[in-house]
Amino acid sequence: MRNIKLTIEYDGRRYLGWQRLGDSDKTIQGKIEAVLKQMTGETIEIIGSGRTDAGAHARGQIANFKTESTMDRLAMCEFLNRFLPGDIVVKKVEEVPERFHARYNASGKKYSYYVWNDPIPTAFERYHSFYVPQELNLDAMNEACKRLVGTHDFIGFSALKKSKKSTTRTVEKITIEKDGSMLHFTFVGNGFLYKMVRIMMGTLLEIGAGKMPVAAIDEIFEQKVRKSAGETVPAQGLFLDEVYYH
Amino acid sequence: MRNIKLTIEYDGRRYLGWQRLGDSDKTIQGKIEAVLKQMTGETIEIIGSGRTDAGAHARGQIANFKTESTMDRLAMCEFLNRFLPGDIVVKKVEEVPERFHARYNASGKKYSYYVWNDPIPTAFERYHSFYVPQELNLDAMNEACKRLVGTHDFIGFSALKKSKKSTTRTVEKITIEKDGSMLHFTFVGNGFLYKMVRIMMGTLLEIGAGKMPVAAIDEIFEQKVRKSAGETVPAQGLFLDEVYYH
Repeated sequence: MRNIKLTIEYDGRRYLGWQRLGDSDKTIQGKIEAVLKQMTGETIEIIGSGRTDAGAHARGQIANFKTESTMDRLAMCEFLNRFLPGDIVVKKVEEVPERFHARYNASGKKYSYYVWNDPIPTAFERYHSFYVPQELNLDAMNEACKRLVGTHDFIGFSALKKSKKSTTRTVEKITIEKDGSMLHFTFVGNGFLYKMVRIMMGTLLEIGAGKMPVAAIDEIFEQKVRKSAGETVPAQGLFLDEVYYH
Repeated sequence: MRNIKLTIEYDGRRYLGWQRLGDSDKTIQGKIEAVLKQMTGETIEIIGSGRTDAGAHARGQIANFKTESTMDRLAMCEFLNRFLPGDIVVKKVEEVPERFHARYNASGKKYSYYVWNDPIPTAFERYHSFYVPQELNLDAMNEACKRLVGTHDFIGFSALKKSKKSTTRTVEKITIEKDGSMLHFTFVGNGFLYKMVRIMMGTLLEIGAGKMPVAAIDEIFEQKVRKSAGETVPAQGLFLDEVYYH
């Protein structure tokens, strides 16, 4: 059996997210598996590095699958891009050692979140950003980012009910860049809990809008309850940029 | 009567173009006029600086209309953006002298055209660019741009059948910038004939692909026939960036 690794870009606006739901055709995983069946004749289950939410995007989602096919990897890439819908693109096909597992071996991830911050909305980026018309205090948000970075129990920034597994994660880096009216946030860490990026973002935006003090970050870490943190921002501004492997 | 000037941004992918077609709801002009009727109670016809094709976009389309409304211009802008679909945005509302006419007074325009030039397609920019997988010779295209610039009879680069009016135009500037896999062409001139940007683009791409020599430009100017020029590229890569007024 060969083990094949895919690097995938997708515009999530039309989809219910990464993970296949029964026979639903409305997921990224489902769409790719259907084309792989066409390509190999085998019923293939692909393993993603992790789920992405309905409406969220990816520039570098990673997945792997096992196959008996002898097809050349460039021919596979061409076949996939010919038969996948245009909003799902396979950027790279690689043959990897049999033990490679896209989820278990992931050592970290990078996400982007985009906020269109202007009194006038955007016609072009509305499905790729979250619209915030009111002014935001960048200094306060940058200060809050510093407090989020590090190794913490992030349960308060997660939509998990309770967890038997550890909810401690290390966020290595958060940056905010301003390009005209677009604010570009990036998050790098060794792992992110369910909806953690979107809840950190919602909290940063409430701090930026002056509705929460910067010190709220420390309180959420102490209290460990979801309701202390900000709203969950919409998935449409979220991009999975990169998955890291050692 | 007040004369109101609008600066409009739109993502044209869902629309049949700028110009209203009967009662069709599928044009930019039709959508804006419907909201203006709601706003003023008047039946308003707006004058655009020019048409844009079905599927083409604008960052700075200009239009004007006359109204008896006493509504403040900022309130107008807010009303329009609240009730227009999200892919049409009014960026600016200005009160202008009564004689201002968005079409007759336009002294020039700037267009952009985007080409995604990579063996791997793009999931995100596919409705905002034209996909060309094969390699393109930038030097040859730049040389061809130099020959297009200037005052010429552009009838051979137009989809006009015959014209009683002059088909001489001045193209002041054409630039090509490369940003990763995206090629960004810009065209500035005092006026553009029907489909002229898309036919110039098609010709440039055939020159870039080595299917036509650079000297073809001069021949098209001499022969003055549409069939000497390249294909008309799709409207989805075309943006009306700016309209100039003296």
